[in-house]
Amino acid sequence: MVRWEPGTPERLQRAALELYAERGFEETTAAEIAQSVGLTERTFFRHFSDKREVLFHGQELFARAFLDGVDAVPPDASPLEVVAAALRAATVFFPDERRPYSRTRQSVIDRNPALQERELHKLASLATTLAEALRARGVTEPAATLAAQSAVTVFGIAFGQWIAEGEERSLADIADSVLGELRTVTAGPPTA
Amino acid sequence: MVRWEPGTPERLQRAALELYAERGFEETTAAEIAQSVGLTERTFFRHFSDKREVLFHGQELFARAFLDGVDAVPPDASPLEVVAAALRAATVFFPDERRPYSRTRQSVIDRNPALQERELHKLASLATTLAEALRARGVTEPAATLAAQSAVTVFGIAFGQWIAEGEERSLADIADSVLGELRTVTAGPPTA
Repeated sequence: MVRWEPGTPERLQRAALELYAERGFEETTAAEIAQSVGLTERTFFRHFSDKREVLFHGQELFARAFLDGVDAVPPDASPLEVVAAALRAATVFFPDERRPYSRTRQSVIDRNPALQERELHKLASLATTLAEALRARGVTEPAATLAAQSAVTVFGIAFGQWIAEGEERSLADIADSVLGELRTVTAGPPTA
Repeated sequence: MVRWEPGTPERLQRAALELYAERGFEETTAAEIAQSVGLTERTFFRHFSDKREVLFHGQELFARAFLDGVDAVPPDASPLEVVAAALRAATVFFPDERRPYSRTRQSVIDRNPALQERELHKLASLATTLAEALRARGVTEPAATLAAQSAVTVFGIAFGQWIAEGEERSLADIADSVLGELRTVTAGPPTA
């Protein structure tokens, strides 16, 4: 195993999260984040457009992980099989070592409406991207958007459980179980 | 039938939408909206906290319509039956006469990221409120959140179809059909 040696963006990201959690997001400046790891404010802004973005670094890779999962399933897979594969691929992004980081990040986001909006926007974009990928595979509407939104919903719920205090299951196991619950809920008795 | 006589907030709302659609959201001031219906800027701000809010007026009533649907189903109904009833109740809010207004409103929102964030936030709050109502009925997690999120997803897709050019079905009929599609998608072959 290679020891993880963070580059400049990652160092800034960890420093930012620490300060946001300690002092609050509003109370922390980009200059303070940079200084805490011996860098300048200018370096901070070379990597991130603002204080919000530092918490969303790597988000293209996260979306990419979902899409890799989509690409990996055979062309005749059902939309739900595609969703399951996309979820499984995305969970690789969140190994158990990352749980404490993710937990702190979420607690910072939960305390700030602007960050919550950014997070909602991120998840909405992810659903749009996934729906596009499903349509590119020949899935028609509204099935493509329903499957994509369901993937994002399942991911969000699974993620919330994964970072809960005391939770020890892997994100992949939780996501599988939440997807199973979705099947149970929607299979319910025919609508009245 | 009583003819609909709009009050001050409704007049401001229609005037705002007209100006936003004509000139753009950014290019329109609260003073201009008020003036266009013979009112003052001060009156505008007595009813709305800002230019964004004028497009989201009545949103508590919209959430209330969903909750009324939840309350109307028997206690032993499945989460999906509750969702179907909530959707049906909410669609009453959007009679066919409202379609042109809703269409214009959406086109304004689609062109402005700040309004899109507000809309996402509204739908996220609606899902949270619906999940609470389901938990209050004894539905456990994650079924409550899954059902609530699914209701919001189905509503969003159905609404998008309802305001599409040339669409003539009622929102209730479209929502029924999208909910049926969700059942088909999630019933698909067992996950690989």
